[in-house]
Amino acid sequence: MNKITKLFGIQYPIVQGGMAWCSGWKLAAAVSNAGGLGLLSAGSMTPELLREHIRKCRAATTKPFGVNVPLMKPDIESLMQVIVDEEIKIVFTSAGNPKTWTPRLKALGMTVAHVVSSSKFARKCEEAGVDAIVAEGFEAGGHNGREETTTLCLVPAVRRATSLPLIAAGGIGTGEAWVAVQALGAEGIQVGTRFALATESSAHPDFKQLCLSLNEGDTKLLLKKLSPTRLVKGGFCTSIEDMEARGASKEELLEFIGVGRARRGMLEGDVETGELEMGQVAALFREEQTAATIVQDLVESYAAALRRLSS
Amino acid sequence: MNKITKLFGIQYPIVQGGMAWCSGWKLAAAVSNAGGLGLLSAGSMTPELLREHIRKCRAATTKPFGVNVPLMKPDIESLMQVIVDEEIKIVFTSAGNPKTWTPRLKALGMTVAHVVSSSKFARKCEEAGVDAIVAEGFEAGGHNGREETTTLCLVPAVRRATSLPLIAAGGIGTGEAWVAVQALGAEGIQVGTRFALATESSAHPDFKQLCLSLNEGDTKLLLKKLSPTRLVKGGFCTSIEDMEARGASKEELLEFIGVGRARRGMLEGDVETGELEMGQVAALFREEQTAATIVQDLVESYAAALRRLSS
Repeated sequence: MNKITKLFGIQYPIVQGGMAWCSGWKLAAAVSNAGGLGLLSAGSMTPELLREHIRKCRAATTKPFGVNVPLMKPDIESLMQVIVDEEIKIVFTSAGNPKTWTPRLKALGMTVAHVVSSSKFARKCEEAGVDAIVAEGFEAGGHNGREETTTLCLVPAVRRATSLPLIAAGGIGTGEAWVAVQALGAEGIQVGTRFALATESSAHPDFKQLCLSLNEGDTKLLLKKLSPTRLVKGGFCTSIEDMEARGASKEELLEFIGVGRARRGMLEGDVETGELEMGQVAALFREEQTAATIVQDLVESYAAALRRLSS
Repeated sequence: MNKITKLFGIQYPIVQGGMAWCSGWKLAAAVSNAGGLGLLSAGSMTPELLREHIRKCRAATTKPFGVNVPLMKPDIESLMQVIVDEEIKIVFTSAGNPKTWTPRLKALGMTVAHVVSSSKFARKCEEAGVDAIVAEGFEAGGHNGREETTTLCLVPAVRRATSLPLIAAGGIGTGEAWVAVQALGAEGIQVGTRFALATESSAHPDFKQLCLSLNEGDTKLLLKKLSPTRLVKGGFCTSIEDMEARGASKEELLEFIGVGRARRGMLEGDVETGELEMGQVAALFREEQTAATIVQDLVESYAAALRRLSS
């Protein structure tokens, strides 16, 4: 038992990151059933679809699960209404100011965690009354902070800035990395990439297979003029790299990207022209595993790494 | 005793990074006298100056110390000749192919470590007969790998690729981070940034003071069209950012930079127009300390972090 397991009522301080097009009810329920905290990703859902996933998740697990909501979503009010209506108890917010929503969610009795990429925002979280902080480093997949601080540098800085329960994210997919961030002051871990590649992830099989063949250096943080995003190299990513190298403007980039790129890549499996978001740590994994196997492996490799350190 | 302390004949597996304009004989001797491994940085020295620093370092310590040599230096042959003439026993090479120099240095009885930023290059090191690998992540100051792999993702990948003694670098300035990279499979640490800000560092006091006031996000990896380099934001860095955002070519960048930028910034203390190289982890430090104090603090905070983990 530690601060994180107590706060969320879970067995292991392992949070499954809410990832657009990956984290539906199947993945969230599987992680929660295995003793971690599953999160539905509202980031790629309409309010109606989110309601459906919440209900299916509830039917599939009696354990706690939550919803991740990127605060910059245009339909944020409707998404939050669904979360309230469906009596969700755990909300992870990201990509926005924690002061906007935290007081309203707390007043409804929810537990609120907020994702930050700097200690400055960690202090804002504390002021906003957030219950736990997720500190996510540069190596993480998908949307990312502007300051490019890595998990190794971010976690100690956030630890110094606040005494709130702290979950480290970005580059964490093994028990060894779990021990590493615990040494830096984190009480829990958020695992995205490895769960995005799990059997229960709703990512397209072709996208998963591509990611399971990646080496280090096969992802890159791009789109810094819009919202920095870590992408799998090749295809769409190459087009963006070329445009950025010649100084393409925000408008040119937006026009090129158009609508539905991420859905096309990650859900529909168009690995050539679709947008593929993935973390650096994908390079460590070569096979698709169930969420339960992943949780078990994290717990066992964590214990083994601790034993090695103390011997 | 572990593989690293045995290999270099030192007390603690702490290597002081060889940093241009910072790592002269005063710093290297102070680190070696404190039980770590001091390195002279040939990167910012002429062969004559390197000879002088080697002799002064030898006069200032009876403990082992080494020289760091960036292999892309145009006067590499003359620098290596000085290293041979002066009977240096430990060489850290970087920024080049380990196969070019390792066999010649090994034939002369030297211990050779090589700095890499990918597991692909770690395998090349093993083929080249290198004695130890330094795996340096994206958060490190100064010259950096193209693939942008962070220490948290790089160290486990290199650990899987080779069984050679492994020194982690990039973002490591505390005992907590030392424990973290040990959990990931490293046997030693290379500390750059924190020693660059030490009393004995030859960096200009104004540059040191600026760095001791930085927060996370105050450095940035730029110059990717030339050789990726982590710089302190503001001044020179802002000019480069602006040029790169509008797609400036390699030639335009080189012309703007001219000659002597790094010397002007780091040695002469022109923090406005000089080039200032620094790692992300600078954000954790607020006061100048002697190298001996830093080594002692690393050892003590390492022991304390291990105790916290095992309790």
